[in-house]
Amino acid sequence: MSKGGKSDQEEGEENMAAWLLGLNTLKIQPFKLPPLGPHDVRVGMKAVGICGSDVHFSRLADYVVKEPMVIGHECAGIIEETGSEVKDLVPGDRVALEPGISFWRCDLCKEGRYNLCPDMKFFGLPPFHGSLARQIVHPAYLCFKLPDNVSLEAGALCEPLSVAVHACRRGNISPETNVLVMGAGPIGLVTLLAARAFGAPRIVNVDVDGNRLSVAKELGADGVVKVSTNMQDIPKEVETICYVMGAKVDVSFDCAGLSKTMSTALSVTRAGGKVCLVGLGHNEMTVPLTPAAARIYCREVDVIGVFRYKNTWPLCIELLRSGKIDVKPLITHRFGFSQKEIEEAFETSAGGGNAIKVMFNL
Amino acid sequence: MSKGGKSDQEEGEENMAAWLLGLNTLKIQPFKLPPLGPHDVRVGMKAVGICGSDVHFSRLADYVVKEPMVIGHECAGIIEETGSEVKDLVPGDRVALEPGISFWRCDLCKEGRYNLCPDMKFFGLPPFHGSLARQIVHPAYLCFKLPDNVSLEAGALCEPLSVAVHACRRGNISPETNVLVMGAGPIGLVTLLAARAFGAPRIVNVDVDGNRLSVAKELGADGVVKVSTNMQDIPKEVETICYVMGAKVDVSFDCAGLSKTMSTALSVTRAGGKVCLVGLGHNEMTVPLTPAAARIYCREVDVIGVFRYKNTWPLCIELLRSGKIDVKPLITHRFGFSQKEIEEAFETSAGGGNAIKVMFNL
Amino acid sequence: MSKGGKSDQEEGEENMAAWLLGLNTLKIQPFKLPPLGPHDVRVGMKAVGICGSDVHFSRLADYVVKEPMVIGHECAGIIEETGSEVKDLVPGDRVALEPGISFWRCDLCKEGRYNLCPDMKFFGLPPFHGSLARQIVHPAYLCFKLPDNVSLEAGALCEPLSVAVHACRRGNISPETNVLVMGAGPIGLVTLLAARAFGAPRIVNVDVDGNRLSVAKELGADGVVKVSTNMQDIPKEVETICYVMGAKVDVSFDCAGLSKTMSTALSVTRAGGKVCLVGLGHNEMTVPLTPAAARIYCREVDVIGVFRYKNTWPLCIELLRSGKIDVKPLITHRFGFSQKEIEEAFETSAGGGNAIKVMFNL
Amino acid sequence: MSKGGKSDQEEGEENMAAWLLGLNTLKIQPFKLPPLGPHDVRVGMKAVGICGSDVHFSRLADYVVKEPMVIGHECAGIIEETGSEVKDLVPGDRVALEPGISFWRCDLCKEGRYNLCPDMKFFGLPPFHGSLARQIVHPAYLCFKLPDNVSLEAGALCEPLSVAVHACRRGNISPETNVLVMGAGPIGLVTLLAARAFGAPRIVNVDVDGNRLSVAKELGADGVVKVSTNMQDIPKEVETICYVMGAKVDVSFDCAGLSKTMSTALSVTRAGGKVCLVGLGHNEMTVPLTPAAARIYCREVDVIGVFRYKNTWPLCIELLRSGKIDVKPLITHRFGFSQKEIEEAFETSAGGGNAIKVMFNL
Repeated sequence: MSKGGKSDQEEGEENMAAWLLGLNTLKIQPFKLPPLGPHDVRVGMKAVGICGSDVHFSRLADYVVKEPMVIGHECAGIIEETGSEVKDLVPGDRVALEPGISFWRCDLCKEGRYNLCPDMKFFGLPPFHGSLARQIVHPAYLCFKLPDNVSLEAGALCEPLSVAVHACRRGNISPETNVLVMGAGPIGLVTLLAARAFGAPRIVNVDVDGNRLSVAKELGADGVVKVSTNMQDIPKEVETICYVMGAKVDVSFDCAGLSKTMSTALSVTRAGGKVCLVGLGHNEMTVPLTPAAARIYCREVDVIGVFRYKNTWPLCIELLRSGKIDVKPLITHRFGFSQKEIEEAFETSAGGGNAIKVMFNL
Repeated sequence: MSKGGKSDQEEGEENMAAWLLGLNTLKIQPFKLPPLGPHDVRVGMKAVGICGSDVHFSRLADYVVKEPMVIGHECAGIIEETGSEVKDLVPGDRVALEPGISFWRCDLCKEGRYNLCPDMKFFGLPPFHGSLARQIVHPAYLCFKLPDNVSLEAGALCEPLSVAVHACRRGNISPETNVLVMGAGPIGLVTLLAARAFGAPRIVNVDVDGNRLSVAKELGADGVVKVSTNMQDIPKEVETICYVMGAKVDVSFDCAGLSKTMSTALSVTRAGGKVCLVGLGHNEMTVPLTPAAARIYCREVDVIGVFRYKNTWPLCIELLRSGKIDVKPLITHRFGFSQKEIEEAFETSAGGGNAIKVMFNL
Repeated sequence: MSKGGKSDQEEGEENMAAWLLGLNTLKIQPFKLPPLGPHDVRVGMKAVGICGSDVHFSRLADYVVKEPMVIGHECAGIIEETGSEVKDLVPGDRVALEPGISFWRCDLCKEGRYNLCPDMKFFGLPPFHGSLARQIVHPAYLCFKLPDNVSLEAGALCEPLSVAVHACRRGNISPETNVLVMGAGPIGLVTLLAARAFGAPRIVNVDVDGNRLSVAKELGADGVVKVSTNMQDIPKEVETICYVMGAKVDVSFDCAGLSKTMSTALSVTRAGGKVCLVGLGHNEMTVPLTPAAARIYCREVDVIGVFRYKNTWPLCIELLRSGKIDVKPLITHRFGFSQKEIEEAFETSAGGGNAIKVMFNL
Repeated sequence: MSKGGKSDQEEGEENMAAWLLGLNTLKIQPFKLPPLGPHDVRVGMKAVGICGSDVHFSRLADYVVKEPMVIGHECAGIIEETGSEVKDLVPGDRVALEPGISFWRCDLCKEGRYNLCPDMKFFGLPPFHGSLARQIVHPAYLCFKLPDNVSLEAGALCEPLSVAVHACRRGNISPETNVLVMGAGPIGLVTLLAARAFGAPRIVNVDVDGNRLSVAKELGADGVVKVSTNMQDIPKEVETICYVMGAKVDVSFDCAGLSKTMSTALSVTRAGGKVCLVGLGHNEMTVPLTPAAARIYCREVDVIGVFRYKNTWPLCIELLRSGKIDVKPLITHRFGFSQKEIEEAFETSAGGGNAIKVMFNL
């Protein structure tokens, strides 16, 4: 288990992983690990969360069945073996994993926007395998040690939390930024938590689902607004949002990415403010740019893209360690790593219901 | 004419101005000046350009006829009288005028975004009178002295040029920014000139009008692309634009503000780049956000609003003085200040044809 | 007392103020108020703090005795009368006062750095009178309404807190910025409080005075380091600071402004970090730039100037309202507004001892 | 010579390089190349410039003689062989080389400040070998193809030009930034050229050497000021600099890094401006921070460190290609690659005299 020692695999135990084989078809099958490079580590996976995009892929057979692929990218585990050049990690260390490997050659990497690297290899983004497996091999510099008081499950949730942290950085959230969050699904909720940790004095969540809004309230939202899916309701809802906010909206996060949420966000954000597009709905979107475009133009409300994250794990771990953020309430369902449970877990995650975050314990 | 002396008005000569009285109805009529405050100057107008928004107002009777209003806001003139506290200007000074008077009380003014001040009084924006008049009174600090080698006409064009300069600042244009300009009307052309002055290595203009593109070429565009008004042509035109650009598009300026121009700009701009919305078309706009929103989201292409300008006159004047920018070729038509000529001038400006910038000499 | 009503002054009650007449000579004498302009308010002063610079002036006779001057600039009070154009305030409103009146004409004001305005009129900065008076007249837009749960004393302390808030903005303090504060006097302590409110995960205060460091600890410093005044001790003390910090120093605030504090800050701050110069010691300073300059050069540790503040009152009041910052523990001494007490108060403030903040209740 | 083919070395020709063996002792000796990795290229060096730091090392025997080292880092050459994974370069390509190899693992690399990477391997910085050799091996992504109209010598000068470009970026130079350059040695001169290319309207160079200032004039400085080495002359010289500048100094570049140059720069730069520390003199420096620190504090004149460069080659090459910058006049001496010429070259470079840039043609 130590450097240079025999790995589990060499000893003949087969590594197993959750493969997406076709439309809604997930199977636990053997997954052969690549050789351990000098700067790599082998990690025994312990906690893996399900993300909407995992579900999304499993529903888009045409896209992914080209070749079977291991899914999963929200994960934490325990170091089992380290490459010859790895200095900061030893077997037994509990780590959270950043899932994307940049190539560090392009202008975007060089200027510090490695999340936009066109040569990124990302867990579970075809054709790259994911991390819902007993073991995986990953670069050591993308494995971040967890303090004793941060659980492996919380470590796995550094991934969605990273999206929120990157969004807060892009939106420049501070103690002087009042925040509107469109959406109260998993990403909307972690955005609420992160905005609070960045000091936002007032945060309001908006959603179509009353249950989700209740969770937002419990997690600390200063106000919530239930809205419809009808574009015609925007003016009325804008009024309600302004009333509930009771202050100017400096930054809006659109965590739903729908025509209506973007239009609402543009309408409600103050002159000189920002609308950050954090998520993208799966349907066709059309934004009637008048009056929305007028808000961009006449009021310099900028629309800021937020794609994944960069260099967020250390901050996420610090926020969890210090207790500024508690992600435990987000985990509503837990499953083991068996064929039956995997199927159940994905059904649960996709099913809507009251599931927020579904977690595997391996 | 000097401090404390009698003003022309007091001597009984009546000040005349171009009033918008109703739908397409402009009349030269007397315009009584407000009293000269201690920090004000009285300026004898010498050069006033017509802007699209002037034409626009004259066409939107319902909007403006509520009360007759003097139009015009692109202007330069000669100081005739100075208030008791004015120190930097004396009668005889040739000046360009910044047309908006902020209130300097709100958060936006305080943080340096005075162009977004909600209490702005702006020349010719109802209910505030404009500057197409023999004389006007204006705060001294908004009158900028012209060097000997900058003409009054060029001084008047500091106003549209300011829009372009503000756009270049918002887009952070530098010698490492390749620029796409959607549109080759007056704003598209000054954006081309300003982007060049800010060092942009490669600039391409796009328009539906071949004549305008010829002017862009003459003014120094590295390439031009003629496009249709048909949304279906976007993919093909994106290809052509990329080919003509021959480099990544770092920043796009949408100077037309139409569904198609915005969609094209979003498609063609590189990951991590910006689309600056500089102008707004008058029709309803609808942007099919898929795939456009996907560009914002997945590639962090930010959409940046550009509204008017702030603190741009000194830079514009320096760019004109040094010869880095020459606005003379933009002036295609000149008129005197008579009833007949005013009518002709607005017809010319509105008529399309080959008119770029129409200028009054008073 | 209401709009248009008779003011106290008109009624013959004489307004009294604390005048600095010469070297350490403060006298309560009549102070005639200027006329109330349309955008002004008259404020009945209720709480005025003593700042080091007030003491400093009273000690620098040669500088200030040129002309007698009312001192004081940390203040809050109650609106007594409002000018004809004032809309947001009414008599009876409790307000904190921003002490500097910018001229809003220069490039610095226009670009949002009005704290650097060369034409600033600042309370108690010769030749402008201060606010340690029964009544003063001030522009309404510089008077900020206090919520019910924020005391007038806390309102007065928005002034020193503003310095800290501006410093945190300039230093870009966030939940990912570990902070070192050189000094634990009043400015060092409010910087600690503000950095905490901005989310700094780890803050260490350094001072030569053990008592001050105890206060820093009580106010929430994660660690404190007692240092000497001897330059030779820097290397040893740098080691101690790093040990106590237990993390990289991202931003240092030099609130003492001495050769030694600046040298220490430059040595201890991480590559790519910032040293913010928040205060300036009164003695001659000499920084041995080797190796300090080498830190600036080879590690891009920038030195950032922090002068006063701009647009900080709303944020300070929000931080007090929400309880994120409590300034009450800073007030160690209180005095009434009599000749005898003024003398005592200044002695207390200047005397060192355990005085942090000395407050007048008028 | 092509992929997979035999390299020159394999054929038995020995690679030769200039080794620094001890105090002022340079010898041409064999230099065995490391194996060519899949992402590496082998470059036949054609042009290598001498930098002050090369001379500096050769003078600091104690520092470098620990182990013999190949020197040189300003270089360009022709691709001879490419690793198996290299796609963008082929043998025969003319390239300029960025000399520093970052490790891409630390926070600084991740946030886009890879020039500060603590694990940087830099040509000719002990213990890493430099590039004054017939052949070297280097990562392909740090080799930038030269257009036909950019010479190999100009390619080699992308290195010092990169320092200037990084300085201009850090100083945010644009068409609205008046620039003061302290120093007119090689770095002062490339800073002049780069600031011009970034659009600076007015640039003044200051030096103690009249010859250097003449070169600055020829290269386009708007004004030059000859100064003494005496600190007492600062006030007088500041006056002269202001007069010659004829405008506010927005940004100063201190390319000398001496007590006097830093003090002068701090005194002369406008409120809210920046002093960029681009070079560091080799002697002890002491800056009398009063009044210099007062400028940082009271006027928010920030001191910005400038260390090497990051992602500058593409821009440098574009500036050379377009003719916005011509570095040819900087090359005053040329030498071949023989033992005798190497000795002469270093003497010339160190000797002061009229040498600006000394170039080897291999």
